[in-house]
Amino acid sequence: MDDIDIEHVAERSLSDPVLIEGLPGVGHIGKLVAEHLVEEFDSECVRRVYADEFPPQVTVDDEGVTELTAAEFHGIQTPGDSPDLLVLTGDHQASTNAGHYKLTSAFLDVAESFGVDHAYALGGVPTGELVEEYTVLGAVTNADLKETLEAADVEFRADEPAGGIVGVSGLLLGLGERRGMNATCLMGETSGYLVDPKSAQAVLEVLQEVIGFEVDFSSLEDRAEEMEEVVGKIQEMQSQQQQQVMGDDDLRYIG
Amino acid sequence: MDDIDIEHVAERSLSDPVLIEGLPGVGHIGKLVAEHLVEEFDSECVRRVYADEFPPQVTVDDEGVTELTAAEFHGIQTPGDSPDLLVLTGDHQASTNAGHYKLTSAFLDVAESFGVDHAYALGGVPTGELVEEYTVLGAVTNADLKETLEAADVEFRADEPAGGIVGVSGLLLGLGERRGMNATCLMGETSGYLVDPKSAQAVLEVLQEVIGFEVDFSSLEDRAEEMEEVVGKIQEMQSQQQQQVMGDDDLRYIG
Amino acid sequence: MDDIDIEHVAERSLSDPVLIEGLPGVGHIGKLVAEHLVEEFDSECVRRVYADEFPPQVTVDDEGVTELTAAEFHGIQTPGDSPDLLVLTGDHQASTNAGHYKLTSAFLDVAESFGVDHAYALGGVPTGELVEEYTVLGAVTNADLKETLEAADVEFRADEPAGGIVGVSGLLLGLGERRGMNATCLMGETSGYLVDPKSAQAVLEVLQEVIGFEVDFSSLEDRAEEMEEVVGKIQEMQSQQQQQVMGDDDLRYIG
Amino acid sequence: MDDIDIEHVAERSLSDPVLIEGLPGVGHIGKLVAEHLVEEFDSECVRRVYADEFPPQVTVDDEGVTELTAAEFHGIQTPGDSPDLLVLTGDHQASTNAGHYKLTSAFLDVAESFGVDHAYALGGVPTGELVEEYTVLGAVTNADLKETLEAADVEFRADEPAGGIVGVSGLLLGLGERRGMNATCLMGETSGYLVDPKSAQAVLEVLQEVIGFEVDFSSLEDRAEEMEEVVGKIQEMQSQQQQQVMGDDDLRYIG
Repeated sequence: MDDIDIEHVAERSLSDPVLIEGLPGVGHIGKLVAEHLVEEFDSECVRRVYADEFPPQVTVDDEGVTELTAAEFHGIQTPGDSPDLLVLTGDHQASTNAGHYKLTSAFLDVAESFGVDHAYALGGVPTGELVEEYTVLGAVTNADLKETLEAADVEFRADEPAGGIVGVSGLLLGLGERRGMNATCLMGETSGYLVDPKSAQAVLEVLQEVIGFEVDFSSLEDRAEEMEEVVGKIQEMQSQQQQQVMGDDDLRYIG
Repeated sequence: MDDIDIEHVAERSLSDPVLIEGLPGVGHIGKLVAEHLVEEFDSECVRRVYADEFPPQVTVDDEGVTELTAAEFHGIQTPGDSPDLLVLTGDHQASTNAGHYKLTSAFLDVAESFGVDHAYALGGVPTGELVEEYTVLGAVTNADLKETLEAADVEFRADEPAGGIVGVSGLLLGLGERRGMNATCLMGETSGYLVDPKSAQAVLEVLQEVIGFEVDFSSLEDRAEEMEEVVGKIQEMQSQQQQQVMGDDDLRYIG
Repeated sequence: MDDIDIEHVAERSLSDPVLIEGLPGVGHIGKLVAEHLVEEFDSECVRRVYADEFPPQVTVDDEGVTELTAAEFHGIQTPGDSPDLLVLTGDHQASTNAGHYKLTSAFLDVAESFGVDHAYALGGVPTGELVEEYTVLGAVTNADLKETLEAADVEFRADEPAGGIVGVSGLLLGLGERRGMNATCLMGETSGYLVDPKSAQAVLEVLQEVIGFEVDFSSLEDRAEEMEEVVGKIQEMQSQQQQQVMGDDDLRYIG
Repeated sequence: MDDIDIEHVAERSLSDPVLIEGLPGVGHIGKLVAEHLVEEFDSECVRRVYADEFPPQVTVDDEGVTELTAAEFHGIQTPGDSPDLLVLTGDHQASTNAGHYKLTSAFLDVAESFGVDHAYALGGVPTGELVEEYTVLGAVTNADLKETLEAADVEFRADEPAGGIVGVSGLLLGLGERRGMNATCLMGETSGYLVDPKSAQAVLEVLQEVIGFEVDFSSLEDRAEEMEEVVGKIQEMQSQQQQQVMGDDDLRYIG
């Protein structure tokens, strides 16, 4: 195998496609959105990218059959005039700095071969506390892209996220721009502690509006409800613990 | 030296050989089986694979003579009509992700040069507790391979092992499949804490049945008995400790 | 992208330029000096060096527009007859040993393409305590370079710094010399705990004198004053803590 | 710079030279012996090996002049008929597995270019306690080499050192043998806690006898005496501490 090996799984003609990247990251926002699109639309795996930067690993499916670790591109023909989608997802990022650059270059090669001229990198911004209002932050390779995004309630904040954007998402913008490809990063605010389908939903709503497709949200809403129950229980436990601590303190203060 | 260097130690013609891989791993199951085959049969080292991914190290033998770290292929002509064996063993896996891919590719090159069209990767699945019944788990590159294995009591469990199969064993399946080679992973259940000749025996019994050779088990049984004595002593010590703890508690409760 | 990619941002003719390197390091001395020169003079970014040894990262500017991590060369035409300046700065060093060598070689290639024949690598030497007098230590590729530097109050101490000079600064001297380029390392003494504009000022004064340009110091002095206030507060807190500790001791001894 | 760069510092014709390697390692035995030979004989640095596997570093000499990290080969014409010496020393080993292989290959290339057909890799074996009798352990690429060494009181112990021989020393034997070069590893027993000139002396005595040169030992003996004083003080401190502990115990037992 070469360092990176691109398998042509199927050919599907996509009209004016945009790339949507959802690899693992903060709150798994990007991955949730990408997988939701792949499940809800009539999608097809068109390319698999194998890389020696991925862990040396096969997964085992429900039949006991193995599959080599890979990132996958799924082609989606959206109804109507809106751009088709080329959705990139997978279970791993690269394992070294240099690997991230090589891998993202390969991803951009695939995107270009499908005629993509705009990439959306999806991710999360950790806030460190439970999020009430699901703001979506944006960053772009080109200031001209901001107007449409701001119309869809995407916020642009000076110098945020403070640490920049790292990993494949960051490089899709950095290396994409160097190739003359427009790229947008959409980051859902999220606590950073949990998988966050609600924040994913906020990002998906932005995508719908700026790209112009429509998708059923119910399965993502179901997942969001499940997670809210989990969060609810955590909050309950925390408040009980606080009351206990306060109770203990009271006793001491009384004594 | 190149990154990987394959030494032709001897030529031996093998008829319809299968590859049996037993590098170090959980419970040393694979290594025990591979070494048992090499010792019990009339085997010959045919290839040595040196790699700069291995530790920079020589071992010293009982004469004080050094040998450079390598993986070894041993050729075995089995009696009768059953396939001959090409057995891969050694003391090390690779040290980086990319190294695992390169090394496994080299192993598959050697296997192909001997006409191998089926690879058996042997390993262990850690259960976290002492094992009473030695189940052998299977995973395959191709669902058609399951029938024969299930007939030999190999179990297939959906999505197990949960973390997938890693290292050279995993990639023999992942990269093997990409070359059109059938590959089977046989994993003996084992505690994960000790070298486990009994689990190795269970894996060897499966191999015997599905490949069709016969081998003497006595030396492996001897090792299994030695290990059982060790395990027995550990269990004794544990139960004594528990009694002591209980004794201490009793005293306190009595007082 | 190749391992290293040099973007020609602008062409500017520089007369007899010297290279001034100020990448991040102890006390950020080098970076402070380099950025001060870029801000105070009429400078222009002439080259950007992208490298897969840098973190896979984009930064986000105050407009929400991203920029791929890079090191930058700025060209400065100094007034009068003194040599022009080619100033190298950035936010990162390389992430591996081999990466430092590759990156520094690329930096020297750029410098040579501008006709540089003398490189100044700037940095700090940690003293472990707050510095009162800001000595500048020197190290050179060639003993002939010492006279001019000593005339500008640069100190040369046998075998110092004890651990040698590491990173890009060290290799600009080591690899520069191997190409026949003169190189000088100027290291401001600094505590090592804080960003140190005062030590940067001492280094800048040496540079002014040995290269022969003149630059306004006021903004660096402002930063130095801000830092001195910070240091003052730290010292105050420390002396208060010491008094408290002594007070506690006194009480005990009295009791 | 290439990955590895060999500088031809000087040409010196060596007659039937043997390679003597003394890079840093346990007890610095090898380095002490190599440096002693370079100092005592009329030696000349003939090659410098630069490698991007070494730290990105320059050292600063007593004049403030820098030198790029490198390994050095020194040529020594011994008096009389005994083989000349090509002595390899330096301050660093490689930083990765693959780097050790590349670096040792380069070292063997240099050795071959001087006509070396026997390499002596020098090192230490840690015993974990202060050594009274300075045994020298041996390991060889070829059992025929043992007779001469045993005549010089070198001990060969089955399967020792247990962990094999690692680093450049190990690979000089492993890769040397693959090129058809004889190689011997001489390991002085040493505590493993301190630089050990006495163990180095034992190794040097073996070298003298098997190669056939003679060298003045006095400076090494001086260093050994200095270290013995250090060791003496450590032992004194330890026995005082033990007495104190015993004293404390006595008091308790008395009470």
